[in-house]
Amino acid sequence: MNDATPDAPATTAAAAAAAASRPIRWYWEHRAVGSVREFGATAVTREATIAFASQFDPQPFHLDDDAARASLFGALSASGWHTCAMAMRMMCDDYLLESSSLGSPGIDNLRWLKPVFPGDVLRVRLTVLQARPMNSRPAVGLVQSQWEVLNQHDAVVLTMTGWGMFGRRTPAAPGDAPPSVP
Amino acid sequence: MNDATPDAPATTAAAAAAAASRPIRWYWEHRAVGSVREFGATAVTREATIAFASQFDPQPFHLDDDAARASLFGALSASGWHTCAMAMRMMCDDYLLESSSLGSPGIDNLRWLKPVFPGDVLRVRLTVLQARPMNSRPAVGLVQSQWEVLNQHDAVVLTMTGWGMFGRRTPAAPGDAPPSVP
Repeated sequence: MNDATPDAPATTAAAAAAAASRPIRWYWEHRAVGSVREFGATAVTREATIAFASQFDPQPFHLDDDAARASLFGALSASGWHTCAMAMRMMCDDYLLESSSLGSPGIDNLRWLKPVFPGDVLRVRLTVLQARPMNSRPAVGLVQSQWEVLNQHDAVVLTMTGWGMFGRRTPAAPGDAPPSVP
Repeated sequence: MNDATPDAPATTAAAAAAAASRPIRWYWEHRAVGSVREFGATAVTREATIAFASQFDPQPFHLDDDAARASLFGALSASGWHTCAMAMRMMCDDYLLESSSLGSPGIDNLRWLKPVFPGDVLRVRLTVLQARPMNSRPAVGLVQSQWEVLNQHDAVVLTMTGWGMFGRRTPAAPGDAPPSVP
């Protein structure tokens, strides 16, 4: 569970040390096309919703109850970028920090399908869509995944398709095939 | 300039009040297709980079100098989601908070083209690509914009195409045409 409040400096240093020290369990070769993982539980708090919006997306409907009631969302809701960030944190905690993740070139088809409200509990469902070697870097493979963020009612509130770069357990050789479901 | 540190509660309340009180200058009808706006200046600090990454994207290359040097980025860099959030804040400060913005259904083709490093100063260039009425809501129009985030070297570090919903100054009538460059 990630309470999504800013860390104090000591906690930040500890988080850095912990992240840096986790061994790699998941390489590019483990991302089988068609595989589905579901993970995480992030409780969305009013405090975190307002803190994120105040810092990055101070539109009235993300900060003020009256403005939110008059908006298309009907009640105070989280910034869509906050939902992305919460999803990323779940990805890190339950997957990427034990992987050979090297970063991402980008995201396609990001859709904020439903508002996220304080009190919601979010989780992530991740489906591998494609995997292929990275032509320019033999030690790196690319994986395209479908992210779905669901709330406690099993409603999908966000979808997006992300590309990730992952270190390969063994560098590419001519004729290598991408991983697939056995 | 947004220093991207979390606001204290009093500042949060003040931000909410200020946001809620700004008059609307820009309606859907003002978003002429082809128009370009450039705005913002956000100085990326090491503290804000590590604070965001600690909270939402604690991958070692966003937190730790040694890990970052060994990564594809070559030095400590901001989470891509942090770059999105900083761009959103510039959009709010210099445009959306004086607009009839009603939120966004989504983003296409988000690309993190170059790393963002502490010390960088970012700005946004926004180009209107399309505008059309929202069929289901006569008081709302849709606008598709190309976002480009540039650094102090005029390098484009992020691009994305976003859809925005904006209140119309006058509700739709049959046969209305979308706004265009005069």
